[in-house]
Amino acid sequence: MLFDLDQARRETPGCKHVTHLNNAGAALMPQPVLHTQISHLELEATIGGYEAAEREQDRIEAVYDSIAQLINCHRDEIAIVENATVGWDMAFYAIPLAEGDRILTAEAEYGANFVAYLQQAKRTGAVIDVIPSTPDGEICLESLKQMIDDRVKLISITHVPTNGGLVNPATEVGRIAREHGILYLLDACQTVGQMPINIAEIQCDMLSATGRKFLRGPRGSGFLYVRRDLIADLEPPMLDHYAAKWMAPDRYEMQSNARRFENWENNYAAKLGLGVAADYALSWGLDRTWQRCLALATQLRDGLAAIPGASLRDIGQQQCAITTFTLAGHDPFQVKQILNSQDINVSVSGPNSTLLDAQKRDLPPLIRASVHYYNSEEEIDRFLRAVGSLNT
Amino acid sequence: MLFDLDQARRETPGCKHVTHLNNAGAALMPQPVLHTQISHLELEATIGGYEAAEREQDRIEAVYDSIAQLINCHRDEIAIVENATVGWDMAFYAIPLAEGDRILTAEAEYGANFVAYLQQAKRTGAVIDVIPSTPDGEICLESLKQMIDDRVKLISITHVPTNGGLVNPATEVGRIAREHGILYLLDACQTVGQMPINIAEIQCDMLSATGRKFLRGPRGSGFLYVRRDLIADLEPPMLDHYAAKWMAPDRYEMQSNARRFENWENNYAAKLGLGVAADYALSWGLDRTWQRCLALATQLRDGLAAIPGASLRDIGQQQCAITTFTLAGHDPFQVKQILNSQDINVSVSGPNSTLLDAQKRDLPPLIRASVHYYNSEEEIDRFLRAVGSLNT
Repeated sequence: MLFDLDQARRETPGCKHVTHLNNAGAALMPQPVLHTQISHLELEATIGGYEAAEREQDRIEAVYDSIAQLINCHRDEIAIVENATVGWDMAFYAIPLAEGDRILTAEAEYGANFVAYLQQAKRTGAVIDVIPSTPDGEICLESLKQMIDDRVKLISITHVPTNGGLVNPATEVGRIAREHGILYLLDACQTVGQMPINIAEIQCDMLSATGRKFLRGPRGSGFLYVRRDLIADLEPPMLDHYAAKWMAPDRYEMQSNARRFENWENNYAAKLGLGVAADYALSWGLDRTWQRCLALATQLRDGLAAIPGASLRDIGQQQCAITTFTLAGHDPFQVKQILNSQDINVSVSGPNSTLLDAQKRDLPPLIRASVHYYNSEEEIDRFLRAVGSLNT
Repeated sequence: MLFDLDQARRETPGCKHVTHLNNAGAALMPQPVLHTQISHLELEATIGGYEAAEREQDRIEAVYDSIAQLINCHRDEIAIVENATVGWDMAFYAIPLAEGDRILTAEAEYGANFVAYLQQAKRTGAVIDVIPSTPDGEICLESLKQMIDDRVKLISITHVPTNGGLVNPATEVGRIAREHGILYLLDACQTVGQMPINIAEIQCDMLSATGRKFLRGPRGSGFLYVRRDLIADLEPPMLDHYAAKWMAPDRYEMQSNARRFENWENNYAAKLGLGVAADYALSWGLDRTWQRCLALATQLRDGLAAIPGASLRDIGQQQCAITTFTLAGHDPFQVKQILNSQDINVSVSGPNSTLLDAQKRDLPPLIRASVHYYNSEEEIDRFLRAVGSLNT
């Protein structure tokens, strides 16, 4: 089946204006996601905020079905939250940890998560142990197996790190976690929408994701998956009267499904937009769009490799739509600025966002170019020409 | 100075469509708040989500100034968050509590907060003590004074309860808290935008508020105030790499201002909308709009009192724009439905949202009609006629 790039670009208003290679930051929203948000805001302004939510109740509920279909789980296992960090936090901070318990994580772990590990380690006396990487750069499965003992209470990794271009072997890690009965939390912020995600295959216990990145949903939207038979064992770090009903003066009762990780108030425009983004991704087919992402990323990496002074900083056996590089003699922030002035969007990934990996590889701030299926081959060429011309 | 009702209604798109008496749920957004959100979403779709936030950086920063001006504090004392519950939670769960510590709260305390007290009491062994009300229904200041001892670590109350129509004496409570050096957390969800709020006068240590209610801002927006010299002592319950910078493999450093209570990702459309809502409220003048709210509420209460079978359920010496009542022989949910079919918006307030007060006063679900300054006297009459006609 041919990929209809024209349709993808026609349905993406931003394609007329920018060469958007900052999909790992926030992708361009397709028209239906934008339209859904605007329509709901207009409805709220016309008939009232609560009244609009009541009228759209069915569509709001259907968002849970869309997300469940997207990652192959049950709707009761989904909490829809303000962003991926909130979702991840609600899961991580719910995990009981005690003195000496071990959290295993990866070298390229995301800063947001690592700060949370450090906070909980300080509070509980748990320790953080970093799984070494293979020479290629991804989590070393052999090392992981050897690290496991009775004190390991959690394996918590980022599926696709914010830079470095690699895909960690999430399914293989899941097999090891299952085998040893260890909780497994997967940060899928950069993966949902980029590649097919199948919970039944990965076998993680908890997974967090954002709307705004490869899923092409609204900023300020995200979700958390928690495995059904685990929900009853997890008390969220914070509760309100939606997450837990106030039954008697001295007693509350938590929701039996993943909504115990939500709170009462929502930005319904963003929530509806997230559902539409999931439906939209499904309509294109994640297998197809993932293949196209890979092809565009290869074009981009090959092109960069041919530019004198450009150094790819990507690692990993399985690479993805995110590419990071430096350009000899050029400040990455300035490169971003110059490209931006030509309507080419990239971002800069600083060492603090993956500090362990950055220290190990002695990384400076990196220029990050991340493609999506709606990018055209011509846009990649345009970007490569722009980068190449910086050195002449 | 005459109140320009025509202008207020002209600038409120919903006024053409509904008689909106659900301002305590979510008020109708004025045109500038709606416009700001839509424009920003369109900008995000046109140039990219991160790129739009960069372009609007100055306006985003100015939101902190607007909120600071609204409640008379410093911009460094403001965290802008997803909703009032998140703001309140980030403050409450940051307060260190130990076995035997006492939390003092009010009889009409909101369910969301009470569930959180119960959770923390269970975790820490702290106890929750309820300040008795006066015969009029608000917090009894004499009782509060008598309850204070060395074990009281927090006074935490709702300024205006979700039903019952009363305004608690927040400033007097603040004086007592200050005198005894006790932390004072004020839930101002129903007050900000309804009446003038002056932090310097109330002297609370922490205050949470929402955008969507009387402030007329977006759903999914809110803020938290934390007193400057208290911030350094409070470690938020959850942290990411925005709230705290990842400095070294084993060390993070929290932001020195109230942004340690935020996280990295934002719904910028809602955030900008919140700022515009604050500016808009300030442009009308909170003293003026509060006086008008009181006059409309009096018209509404007087009218209800004259309807056979209608029973006002309001309490308190100082009453506000929120009115609650029952109608003999009528199910409140059905009344809401019937009024709604006539484009009159009210809500129903269930016993679980203020369980202690509901049990004490033996309250059934209540019909809640809440006015705002843009309501017209004719709308109040229309509502009263509609309620009256239910009994004929």
